[in-house]
Amino acid sequence: MAIPPGVSNRDWQTALQQFVQAVGESGVFTSDEDIGLYRDAYSPLWEEPEERLASAAIAPTTTEQVSEVVRVANRFRIPIFPIATGRNLGYGGSAPNLSGSVVVDLKRMNRVIEVDDRRHFAIVEPGVSYFDLYRHIQDRGLKVWIDCPDPGWGSPLGNALDHGVGYTFGAYRDHFHSHCGLEAVLPNGDVIRTGMGALPGAKTWAEYRYGFGPTVDGLFAQGNVGIVTKMGFHLLPAPEAYQTSVVTVPRRNDIVPLIGLVNELEHAGLIGQPGYGSPLAARRADLEELLKRPGGPPAEDLDRFAQEQKLGSWTCRLQFYGAPAVIAAHIAYAKDRFTRDIPGATFEDGELLRFPLTQEQLDSVRKVAVGIPNLAAFGGRRGSDGHLWFAPVIPKTGEAVLEAQRVFMDVFARRGGPALISPFSMPATWMYRAFVFLMGFPISRSDVTVNQRTRETMREIIKVAAEHGWGEYRAAPAFQDDVMAAYSYNNSALLRLHETIKDAIDPNGIMAAGRSGIWPRHLRGRRA
Amino acid sequence: MAIPPGVSNRDWQTALQQFVQAVGESGVFTSDEDIGLYRDAYSPLWEEPEERLASAAIAPTTTEQVSEVVRVANRFRIPIFPIATGRNLGYGGSAPNLSGSVVVDLKRMNRVIEVDDRRHFAIVEPGVSYFDLYRHIQDRGLKVWIDCPDPGWGSPLGNALDHGVGYTFGAYRDHFHSHCGLEAVLPNGDVIRTGMGALPGAKTWAEYRYGFGPTVDGLFAQGNVGIVTKMGFHLLPAPEAYQTSVVTVPRRNDIVPLIGLVNELEHAGLIGQPGYGSPLAARRADLEELLKRPGGPPAEDLDRFAQEQKLGSWTCRLQFYGAPAVIAAHIAYAKDRFTRDIPGATFEDGELLRFPLTQEQLDSVRKVAVGIPNLAAFGGRRGSDGHLWFAPVIPKTGEAVLEAQRVFMDVFARRGGPALISPFSMPATWMYRAFVFLMGFPISRSDVTVNQRTRETMREIIKVAAEHGWGEYRAAPAFQDDVMAAYSYNNSALLRLHETIKDAIDPNGIMAAGRSGIWPRHLRGRRA
Repeated sequence: MAIPPGVSNRDWQTALQQFVQAVGESGVFTSDEDIGLYRDAYSPLWEEPEERLASAAIAPTTTEQVSEVVRVANRFRIPIFPIATGRNLGYGGSAPNLSGSVVVDLKRMNRVIEVDDRRHFAIVEPGVSYFDLYRHIQDRGLKVWIDCPDPGWGSPLGNALDHGVGYTFGAYRDHFHSHCGLEAVLPNGDVIRTGMGALPGAKTWAEYRYGFGPTVDGLFAQGNVGIVTKMGFHLLPAPEAYQTSVVTVPRRNDIVPLIGLVNELEHAGLIGQPGYGSPLAARRADLEELLKRPGGPPAEDLDRFAQEQKLGSWTCRLQFYGAPAVIAAHIAYAKDRFTRDIPGATFEDGELLRFPLTQEQLDSVRKVAVGIPNLAAFGGRRGSDGHLWFAPVIPKTGEAVLEAQRVFMDVFARRGGPALISPFSMPATWMYRAFVFLMGFPISRSDVTVNQRTRETMREIIKVAAEHGWGEYRAAPAFQDDVMAAYSYNNSALLRLHETIKDAIDPNGIMAAGRSGIWPRHLRGRRA
Repeated sequence: MAIPPGVSNRDWQTALQQFVQAVGESGVFTSDEDIGLYRDAYSPLWEEPEERLASAAIAPTTTEQVSEVVRVANRFRIPIFPIATGRNLGYGGSAPNLSGSVVVDLKRMNRVIEVDDRRHFAIVEPGVSYFDLYRHIQDRGLKVWIDCPDPGWGSPLGNALDHGVGYTFGAYRDHFHSHCGLEAVLPNGDVIRTGMGALPGAKTWAEYRYGFGPTVDGLFAQGNVGIVTKMGFHLLPAPEAYQTSVVTVPRRNDIVPLIGLVNELEHAGLIGQPGYGSPLAARRADLEELLKRPGGPPAEDLDRFAQEQKLGSWTCRLQFYGAPAVIAAHIAYAKDRFTRDIPGATFEDGELLRFPLTQEQLDSVRKVAVGIPNLAAFGGRRGSDGHLWFAPVIPKTGEAVLEAQRVFMDVFARRGGPALISPFSMPATWMYRAFVFLMGFPISRSDVTVNQRTRETMREIIKVAAEHGWGEYRAAPAFQDDVMAAYSYNNSALLRLHETIKDAIDPNGIMAAGRSGIWPRHLRGRRA
């Protein structure tokens, strides 16, 4: 068993006893076997000396226990690292930024406190998974939907705190933005409630988010000033039906009006999440010569190929929610607009699905699109033991997509090896108002050179992105200092403010040291 | 000319010279005549010794000047109070919380930095008014709408920072929630940019709000840790048309399904802001006997009267936006739902208005509903010299409305004098997920007893609301300590956190001392 850094063996033993007093024997884990479960399964430092490892784990069941655990940690200056369900794979999983931290594992705090389907909100604890919340709603026949990310085993609360994203309507896909009110334990053990929750007996905790005065909620997301123990969310009233329509546009340069028009439909609330693609992506082998041209393949040559092959250049899957007649009006309007704006646009409508779905429909529907948590994301091919996400945010325009393709292809060309980006790559569309040009770099548990290469590529591509005005919205602990370093406006004034706040709220620096590149004063040298 | 509290005359004279160096002679105001313009026109303490008054005002034109002004203030520990356009009437106007503060008036920072109608955002400075931004958009024929509050002379940035609200779609009505990225000058003069703006050359400052790591934006809204000098906003793509339909329901208890169904339509994005009313409100004289009944008028008696008079009990104005065919589908769906859920519901459709409007349509349309700033709110009758807003947040249910009517009517009955609430009063619906039971208490410039009475009522009604779990979302400086005191969960843990953050970021306590009940350490005794 490792001892947390900067803690004497004697203090550690005393602290462990006090942790046991706080949560019981069954809530304190110190064996190598137990601690091994908190390793990041996709660590880019797997089995290397720098791998970020926990020293112990503690699993409280109540806010009072969390408060007591934090008080003990603060007393002995023991670094702690809270996780909700710890399923943040590709972004660090359940492992801490600082090796030797004690993981505070909140999975046993798994109460759904309230779901209201007349006012459309939920209040949950950190250990509640998307599966749990979905089941709670279904069991009671409540008329609300959740918005879930790819794997349904994650925590709505934890996902929101990591600025996680989902698959239905823009206003609900941004999970932190749709949160409303939270309860948190501060590094001194004090318990706060934000928004209306700060008013004893509050009636609108999960409805009105600000309460009175400034809001501190943002400090807790990707932050390290407390442990969030409850969170409210606004929910979508359950729609009556769902239908997709895929629009295909013929020419490469149609990407500009395509994205412009989809933006308009989406920001006006007519469609849910759009999903872009290119039918040419599957034909890269036939285009090898063209793709090798310096400066990229000429648009007219790609257009000629697409025309000969009767393929479109780009597609967008539009998603419609609501009553059947409302969906029909939205689809008709969208088609009318595309037809007017982009000559040659064609459409393929999906089946109109009315809820509740039949078993057959349930088996074939894209579950995340209709708010059903699942683990389908893990069902695909596996080319590696895991992946590390690179997630740069780029503008929501065709021009920006084409530029990002070129810039990132250049990086791969310069570094050699397989390119993750082609002239047909399209960004992820989870965010309401921006794209993420997501890439998953390979991780190996057996070949350290794979991980070394991934780390080098990651460091380089973060810098290249920053030179173009693109920053990452999320990153694994091993790269959080690098990503934060790119947010350097005015001599890193924002990071310096984060550090000022960190030092004030957590003077002993016990809470999630290093998260998002924010280190407590005594460890700040690490950043450089 | 007053001297700021705690500042020596010598330091004050030196500081004034340095302010002049920072912004020029024409940007520093010290005459009684000039300073008088910064009085709160609706002050509940008008001409009383406690009236909150500025000592001077400074009007910088650039962020660099703001930074220099703040550095001077910090050097001499001069309390400063930033305002955008200072139009926050009924909530304090342009006067500071702490008498003797120097107002930093940002009205000369009035650049519209960017408006994009393909990605639907704007970036503005504090002195830009809703009128300015609207004109900028119209002059360029940009296809975006703004969401404005009642008087159009206010500042989008200032309104958002005060948690201000508007009149179109839920996602846009909450002005702080639809902001995206800001620039601020900290109390030490340092300039930060938040979200993607922290990345030099950022391409998505007004599109993706979090950047990387925690977000501090919430600290600046109703807060006092800096002066916001730029802010981005998400905008609504300009709709093709607009139509209203007023639904009327017959029975008093229909308020419960009425609000439930409107919630569903609104949270699903089918309608913009709903507007509730009661046709019986105008018939109070005829109902005098019934209204005097202890415990309130029986629902069946009110229903009988309504039926005899062929009046409905409640109405809701539904607002639809989009292409004409989309609006038609939404209206048809809404009518179908109301007809099924509430027997006897009737509808009255407004004219379908296509944009751009004709002059005649423009003259008759409710301008705020279609994003057109105006000053119509000041055109009505005037029973007093001003008003003070009491703004308690209550749940979005019929039960809560009926309860709030009873509770607040009791307060007025107990205190005597005219009641502002009747069994037909409905709450304001600006917020997306909660109601505000707004009341305007009278203010007088000539009769101090009117103001004394208003202050007494205000203090009492804040307490009564808190006992029922209702807190205010906004208040004038004279009542901010009272309102914040109601948010007292766990020995006012949230306020104590605000104070910790305040002391860390503004150790000299120069910035907007007392705003939202948050005082710097050296003035904290004031709160008690």
